[in-house]
Amino acid sequence: MSEPIYEATASAPVNIAVIKYWGKRDTSLILPTNSSLSVTLSQDHLRSTTTSRASSSFDKDRLWLNGQEDVIKPGSRLETCIREMKKLRKELVEDKDANAPKLSTLPVHIASYNNFPTAAGLASSASGFAALVSSLAHLYTLTPPLTSPSTLSLIARQGSGSACRSLFGGFVAWEMGSTPTGTDSLAVQIADEAHWPEMHALICVVSDDKKGTSSTAGMQRTVETSTLLQHRIKDVVPRRMDEMIRAIKEKDFDSFARITMADSNSFHAVALDTEPPIFYMNDVSRAIIALIVELNRVSLEKGEGYKAAYTYDAGPNAVIYTLDKNVKEVIQLIVKYFPQKAGEFKDNLQVLGGGVADINQVAQVPEGFNEKVAVVREVGAVKGLIHTKVGDGPRRLGDEESLLGKDGFPKTLVA
Amino acid sequence: MSEPIYEATASAPVNIAVIKYWGKRDTSLILPTNSSLSVTLSQDHLRSTTTSRASSSFDKDRLWLNGQEDVIKPGSRLETCIREMKKLRKELVEDKDANAPKLSTLPVHIASYNNFPTAAGLASSASGFAALVSSLAHLYTLTPPLTSPSTLSLIARQGSGSACRSLFGGFVAWEMGSTPTGTDSLAVQIADEAHWPEMHALICVVSDDKKGTSSTAGMQRTVETSTLLQHRIKDVVPRRMDEMIRAIKEKDFDSFARITMADSNSFHAVALDTEPPIFYMNDVSRAIIALIVELNRVSLEKGEGYKAAYTYDAGPNAVIYTLDKNVKEVIQLIVKYFPQKAGEFKDNLQVLGGGVADINQVAQVPEGFNEKVAVVREVGAVKGLIHTKVGDGPRRLGDEESLLGKDGFPKTLVA
Repeated sequence: MSEPIYEATASAPVNIAVIKYWGKRDTSLILPTNSSLSVTLSQDHLRSTTTSRASSSFDKDRLWLNGQEDVIKPGSRLETCIREMKKLRKELVEDKDANAPKLSTLPVHIASYNNFPTAAGLASSASGFAALVSSLAHLYTLTPPLTSPSTLSLIARQGSGSACRSLFGGFVAWEMGSTPTGTDSLAVQIADEAHWPEMHALICVVSDDKKGTSSTAGMQRTVETSTLLQHRIKDVVPRRMDEMIRAIKEKDFDSFARITMADSNSFHAVALDTEPPIFYMNDVSRAIIALIVELNRVSLEKGEGYKAAYTYDAGPNAVIYTLDKNVKEVIQLIVKYFPQKAGEFKDNLQVLGGGVADINQVAQVPEGFNEKVAVVREVGAVKGLIHTKVGDGPRRLGDEESLLGKDGFPKTLVA
Repeated sequence: MSEPIYEATASAPVNIAVIKYWGKRDTSLILPTNSSLSVTLSQDHLRSTTTSRASSSFDKDRLWLNGQEDVIKPGSRLETCIREMKKLRKELVEDKDANAPKLSTLPVHIASYNNFPTAAGLASSASGFAALVSSLAHLYTLTPPLTSPSTLSLIARQGSGSACRSLFGGFVAWEMGSTPTGTDSLAVQIADEAHWPEMHALICVVSDDKKGTSSTAGMQRTVETSTLLQHRIKDVVPRRMDEMIRAIKEKDFDSFARITMADSNSFHAVALDTEPPIFYMNDVSRAIIALIVELNRVSLEKGEGYKAAYTYDAGPNAVIYTLDKNVKEVIQLIVKYFPQKAGEFKDNLQVLGGGVADINQVAQVPEGFNEKVAVVREVGAVKGLIHTKVGDGPRRLGDEESLLGKDGFPKTLVA
């Protein structure tokens, strides 16, 4: 009797933090110096997809990312994730059911694919490790009630810290935990993707002429040299986590926006307070901030509350959170200051794998808006605008979506 | 008998802080939230000059800045400084010597002139108020032993906080003090201008397309909204002040450079942590930082210590402190990445009122320098380079330098 095909394919979403993770207290277990909180973006637009297959015919564990092999080095984060998932398979399935196939003993082939290009400057490690862990969980039947997304988040966390938050849809907290082994440093869902349907996210993909400091290297330099980080960790973030959880539960956009912007600023402030300093935002990033600040100023003066909130990760791209009723105005504003030839703009959006923002309208600013807060930039300063919404957690996909061929190798290989 | 001419002319220097002043605990007395420390730059290059004359023929106190009248508003900082100087004249001179002319009862005409244009983006309020107070001190014979620069600094401080530090040459601390009336919030000299003759300062004048937030408004917003400022004030700056004073006294350039850069970063970090955030540095400022960081990295790897230190005030200009032995290399580096047509460059320097840097040498980088840390910019990104050194405190000038004509009005009037 020939061996059955043991395989599963899953996709996982990107998440963008509104309370930032910056700093590890344990670099090998990836235990953070503070809790963080993110919004999961829709996989309809941005996703990582991973197929995992176990077979006695394979020589060893192997992984291909976007068709190119990524060697699994001993002691690497990749190896840790695969090993931990195999261990969980053994403990929760094989040790309890003598009839269960001993998949934990078989080598795996893993193929992973991101539908957004590297050029978009979006971190793919979070969605990538979440998809890896999810596909292995399905392969190993480590699904509820045997495990939970929080349990799996403990393993995804060891691949890439923020990956743990991509195990849930909606609004997700990564609780820093306190044990030295990290058993309580996991993701929990604050509200699901249906909770706040009015919420939109706009990613402004900003051109940059230099490669920034990697977040792994950057955050450790901040931990070692910043004099302000300890204050952020101990006093600022804990208070903001409580306020943000309340704001989300009550769908209080004013508080959500205020805290989101303050925490983005605070993260970039401690990056700047690092020796030597780390800058992720450039002049275009700053101009986008000036636009959002002015948009909110005008609205607040009219007693109409915040209209949008910016946040920046470890790069120059802006992510703007806004509500249904304001999304058109925000897109108009961005398009006015960062002009695009309409056709190219649309092409860029498609290339970037995002939802296509409706830019077929006159670029304009609201009444009372001080147009001089930023200068109109050359075409291409913002390379594209990805328009998306809050989305669900990892999805199991059908066999027809498999990234592996019959031979156990990626269907699309890049030399 | 006709009234004698009561007049004095003085010049005062610019100072550039290495431990930054950012935040007031009392906005009307200008009492800071932390102590600060600066280097006084040479008046041979950059200075404010002020002539003050008292006469019974004048109607009221009047002041002209660069030939244009600046109306002295009731309750203004300008009025406060003049009133406080008159009060000191009365208490220390007229009340003690019945024969002393009652100058405190006479209106004054004051003409002030900065030898560097506004376009250079250098704050002129520090040198300006220091020159004002110095010229009035000479007019009123409020000179040692009757007063001291520290006593006068109490009054200059009420004109513009950092002006108090321009009352001394060399290296100057502004002690924040603790009394509610500010009687102990004054400048003291840490070391005079002859102490560290190897020290040079290079001001890179950076083009900017937008007007930044004024420092007065900006610092109050930081006090009101930054969550990190309190930590900077209470823990970070006090320790740095002690370390910096030691570094200066021991001429320890490595410590001086490290603390100078760290404190510049810390100031800009709390500005960024403000709601809405304040940015003073732009992409050119960041590129200059990248050059200095790389220059130091190469040097530190060779065990040769820091070569230069950058610092930024409330604007995009860099001030680079470096020693005699490294100044040529630093200028070469800046000129390589911020090219200038030689003639124009020299003209710019003269226009900017600075010393002319020797750029008649091949622009180059040291061995091992990663040339990709910054891109070579277009001509004009850095408008000019002012090369100067540490200088002395306010100088009394001769009558031939008077800015006032026989008629009591500025010799050069601008409509």
